[in-house]
Parts: sequence; structure tokens; C-alpha cells
Amino acid sequence: MYSKVTFIGGGSFGTALSILLSKKGVTVSVWDKNLEVIEDINVKRENLKYLPKVAIPSNVKAYENLEEALLGSEAVVLAVPSHAIRDVSRKLRPLIRENQIVVSIAKGIEESTQKRLSEVIEEEIPNNPIVILSGPSHAEEVAIDIPTTVVVASKNMEAAAKTQDLFMTNKFRVYTNDDLVGVEIAGAVKNIIALAAGVSDGIGYGDNTKAALMTRGMSEIIRIGTKLGGKLETFSGLTGMGDLIVTCTSMHSRNRRAGILIGQGHSTDKVSDEIGMVVEGIKACKAFYILKEKLGVSMPITDILYKVLFEGKDPKYGVYELMSREKKDEVNF
Amino acid sequence: MYSKVTFIGGGSFGTALSILLSKKGVTVSVWDKNLEVIEDINVKRENLKYLPKVAIPSNVKAYENLEEALLGSEAVVLAVPSHAIRDVSRKLRPLIRENQIVVSIAKGIEESTQKRLSEVIEEEIPNNPIVILSGPSHAEEVAIDIPTTVVVASKNMEAAAKTQDLFMTNKFRVYTNDDLVGVEIAGAVKNIIALAAGVSDGIGYGDNTKAALMTRGMSEIIRIGTKLGGKLETFSGLTGMGDLIVTCTSMHSRNRRAGILIGQGHSTDKVSDEIGMVVEGIKACKAFYILKEKLGVSMPITDILYKVLFEGKDPKYGVYELMSREKKDEVNF
Repeated sequence: MYSKVTFIGGGSFGTALSILLSKKGVTVSVWDKNLEVIEDINVKRENLKYLPKVAIPSNVKAYENLEEALLGSEAVVLAVPSHAIRDVSRKLRPLIRENQIVVSIAKGIEESTQKRLSEVIEEEIPNNPIVILSGPSHAEEVAIDIPTTVVVASKNMEAAAKTQDLFMTNKFRVYTNDDLVGVEIAGAVKNIIALAAGVSDGIGYGDNTKAALMTRGMSEIIRIGTKLGGKLETFSGLTGMGDLIVTCTSMHSRNRRAGILIGQGHSTDKVSDEIGMVVEGIKACKAFYILKEKLGVSMPITDILYKVLFEGKDPKYGVYELMSREKKDEVNF
Repeated sequence: MYSKVTFIGGGSFGTALSILLSKKGVTVSVWDKNLEVIEDINVKRENLKYLPKVAIPSNVKAYENLEEALLGSEAVVLAVPSHAIRDVSRKLRPLIRENQIVVSIAKGIEESTQKRLSEVIEEEIPNNPIVILSGPSHAEEVAIDIPTTVVVASKNMEAAAKTQDLFMTNKFRVYTNDDLVGVEIAGAVKNIIALAAGVSDGIGYGDNTKAALMTRGMSEIIRIGTKLGGKLETFSGLTGMGDLIVTCTSMHSRNRRAGILIGQGHSTDKVSDEIGMVVEGIKACKAFYILKEKLGVSMPITDILYKVLFEGKDPKYGVYELMSREKKDEVNF
């Protein structure tokens, strides 16, 4: 087991996992560029901005200086939004030790290249094992020991097993999965579907409507995910169906909350400001809108959501369109 | 299109569909044994007991006498709980016309024989086409025109297509599916999972916990469903995943509400009284507990829920057991 771990980024999930590790006796250092976050962690012992009302143990310490934060650290957790992954990985490269495991908890793909985040990290840090941690795990619940299950995926199953041991507790169950592609694609696309589900809620539609959207969303995840080489079992597992469910139905989900605001008629720009944290689904929608065209995969929810988010399409009409497609037999509806 | 349809049973979903058909211009007769329900429908034009606050149009009429209710009717909808299906079908047999379509909207299997409801109906009414209507469709939402999607399944696809035409509106989309076994098994087992999800909520666990339970519940549906001959596509569709989601997450779901009460420590008997309507998941749990043993299929959620419901097992310990199984790789977790 590791005795010191560094988190890059003091956001909500990063902070929740820092607390979890610190309770297991691991010394945690958190690097963040926001001085207020650093002070809140070190002095107030509470991340007021991203994870309020949860006490941070004394063996978690935040740093402004990256080198200092990495000192003596045995594993590094990238806890930044998807768009920051390349930049942060590049910064890490000269500082990271050989064979040090790099864990990423972001969900998305790189907008400009449509590459998976583990691919982006590997391009920047080519000699270290990379592990993706994903699954239905809202930070607000993980931080207060609500029973949660997640998956760690990697090309390097030894690194995955080490990461499993690192995070596993009797309330936070960690499973391994060697389907890195499936885990990453499911995690990215479910945010698009959660946005769409939020839009449906925001319009005032019901649970019946949302369940139908989520079911079709699952098909969308499977279509693009298997095309990219992911396994069917992964999509019906925790990082696929499990994470889709929690993201579409929980009020903890920023993507869903952003969708609700859009369904109520707010503009995409305003919504991002309102939520105050990165809305990964908006970025993912842009990236997958391009990727699905390249690959010739049908993703009608992504398609219509893109038009709602970026082309001013009326959300109400968008959901109506999705619900009233002509196909009359259920399979692939 | 049919001009007259008879509903056997004036419960919530039956009443919602009666209203839907009546708005399409179909004359609807409802047979019920409860005189209060009959009077509420005919005089107050509102089903106060089962679907309050929704106006019932004047072309819906309720009857105490079954023969009268069936007069001139072109299709019959069985809108009774699963345990009443055989009895009602037997009563109908001498009164039903040849080739008249029988639609069932109940979800469950017969407790004593573990037969699917379409099998039970067929045993009692062997010469009529039988259609099952299922999917994520809470009555409370269907009744007020919230966009909803359902599936009609049958061995007789001509009858399924006729039923599709009968119910289809621009807010109530009906899809056909020839996988009768899959549709019926998914509809029955999801009530067990929804009960378990409710138990988790009742204990005070979170969205992360419930998403994990639902994901494992889906595997349970797939294992028993495919063993019985259902198709994988059906389980990831509206009557599988879609209905599972809506039943596990909506407060409209009686099964979920019953589970919440059980999670809070109420007894199984008391809970059935409290809900005031049949809790299909309780019956389904009993039936599938027997069936899974016969077929040698692993259904750990059903197993543990059975012990909680009927053997006094502590629900908290039950959920803990489900969450802490030893398996460490994700597939089939």
C-alpha cells in the first residue's frame, strides 16, 4: 500500500477521494492553482467551494507549488476536468518518477482530437502506467461514506490492482476491468445523456419520458462504444448503465442540473456560469458530435442536444422529435 | 380502429389508459367489483381511490355486471393485479368473442405455477390472441399526457400491431416486440429490484448505492430472462432497462415506496396495507425465489430480499451483504 498520494486538483471528487485515503492512513497532498481552495483545505479544513460541510483530516495538505506537492508521492491522481488533462500531464512529465502510477478520474474525451483521456495522458507521460477510475460515485456521497462501487481500468492490470487496493474500503468497493476503451467512452457519453435527461426534466416532462430517453441513451453509448472497441459487458456494468443512471437521476449531478436549466430556457453560456463547475456533458456533446460523424455512428440524442446547445434549437421541440421517431418496432428504437 | 374497448379492473393504469382511449374517441367500459370505484367513475367522473385529480371523459362508463361491460366490445384489457389474472380470465372465457384481442397490463408471474401471465391467460382463454403491454409508464403521468413510450408484445404480431394502433398517440408511443418471454420476465423481475432499491433508499443510502444495486439487478433480469428464452435486446430496451429505471427512481412507484418502508423497519404485512394497492414486487420475489432454484440461476438480490421480506433478515445487513461480495473483477459483479 502507498503511504503518500498526490492529487492534482482540489475539486469535489478529488477532495472526496483525498478524505477517503486520509482516513485509511495515507498522507495526501493536493495541488491546486486556486489559492482560496488551498487555504480552505489547509486552514479551514473544509473545501468550501467544491465540497462544503465535510471535514478534511489533518493528513491532507494542499500546495500551490507542484514540485512540493509531488515530494515523496507514490501515486498521482489527476483530478481535473477533461479539458485540463493534457496541460496538467505535460506539466507533470518532468516531475514524475518512472513507474509511478497515474490515476485519472475525469470523464470526457479531448474536444479537439476526440482522443480518450488515457490516450492524452499517455502522449504526454509515455512511460508511466495509467489507470482510469470511473463508476456511479457522486463526491457528496463518497465523502460521507455512503456505500459506493467504482471500477478501475487500465492496459496495465497490475497497476489497476494496485489502485484497487489503494482506494478500497468496506464502503467504497473497487472492481477492476481491463476494458479501458469501454470504461472511458461510457463515462464520457453518459454526461451527454444526463444533460438531455435534465433538459427533459427542465421542460417539465416526467419519469416515463426520462426513462425512455435514458434507454435510448444507453443504445447510443453501446453503438459508439463498441464501434471504438469497447466491450458490451462494460456498457451494462457500473461505468456504463450504473453511471448513466446516477448521473441522469441524482440532483448531485451537475450535468443533469445544467440540462434542467437549459430545458427551462437558459442559454448554454449562462448555464455553465450558474453551475460554477465544468459541465463535462457540454464539452462531450461537441466532441462526440464530431466523432460520430467521422465514424458514421447514429447518435440521435447527441445530435439533437448539439442543436439545442449550440444552434438555438428549442429544447421542447428537440425532445418531441426524439420521442416521435417513426420506427415502430422496438429493437434499436 | 376499434370503437369500443372493455377494461377489466378500474385501477390506476387501467383508468389512465381508459382516459387515453376515450380521448381518441373510443367508447370505454370498465368492469370493477368495487361499487365505490364504479360510482366515482360514473358520477364523480374521477377515480378518487386509484387516480385522483384526473377528469374522466363521459365516454368512459363503469359497470358492476361483466356481461354488460363486454357488450359490443371489440377488445378486452385485463387491468388487474397478477394474482387475479387467472380468475378473471376464467370468468371471461364464456363471454368473450372469438378472435377478440385480450391485452394484459399486469406485471408479474403466477406465484403458485411460476407461469408467465400470457401463459395463464392462454390456459383459460385458449382461442384468443393475447397481447402484453409493458414499459416505463406510470399511470399518473400517462393520464396527464406526459410523453411516454411502451411496448406491445405477442406471439401474434398482427394482434400486436392492432393494439399498437389502438393505443398510439403523439404523447404515448407504442412499439411492437415479438419477444413475449423477454417482455414479461423483465416486467416481473424489475419490481423485485425496485423493492430492493427502495429498501436501500429507506435505510438512508444514496444514489451511488442505488445505481450499483440497479446495475446488478439488470444482470439478474438478464440471467433469468435469457435462461427462460428472452432476448438480450429486450432487456436493454424499454420493458427491461427503461422500466427498471422508472420503477427504481420514481416516487410514483408503489414497489419502490414499499421498499422504502421496509428499509425503514416496517413489516412486510404492514407495508402492503399502507400502500393500499397490490405490491407486485413482494409477490414476484416469492415466485422468482422458487423459479431461480428450479432453474439454477443466481439471483442474489432476489435471494436477500426474500430473506428480508419473509424471514426477518435485517435490511441494512442485507444491502451490506450485496455490496460487499468478494468478487473483485467487474464482469458479472
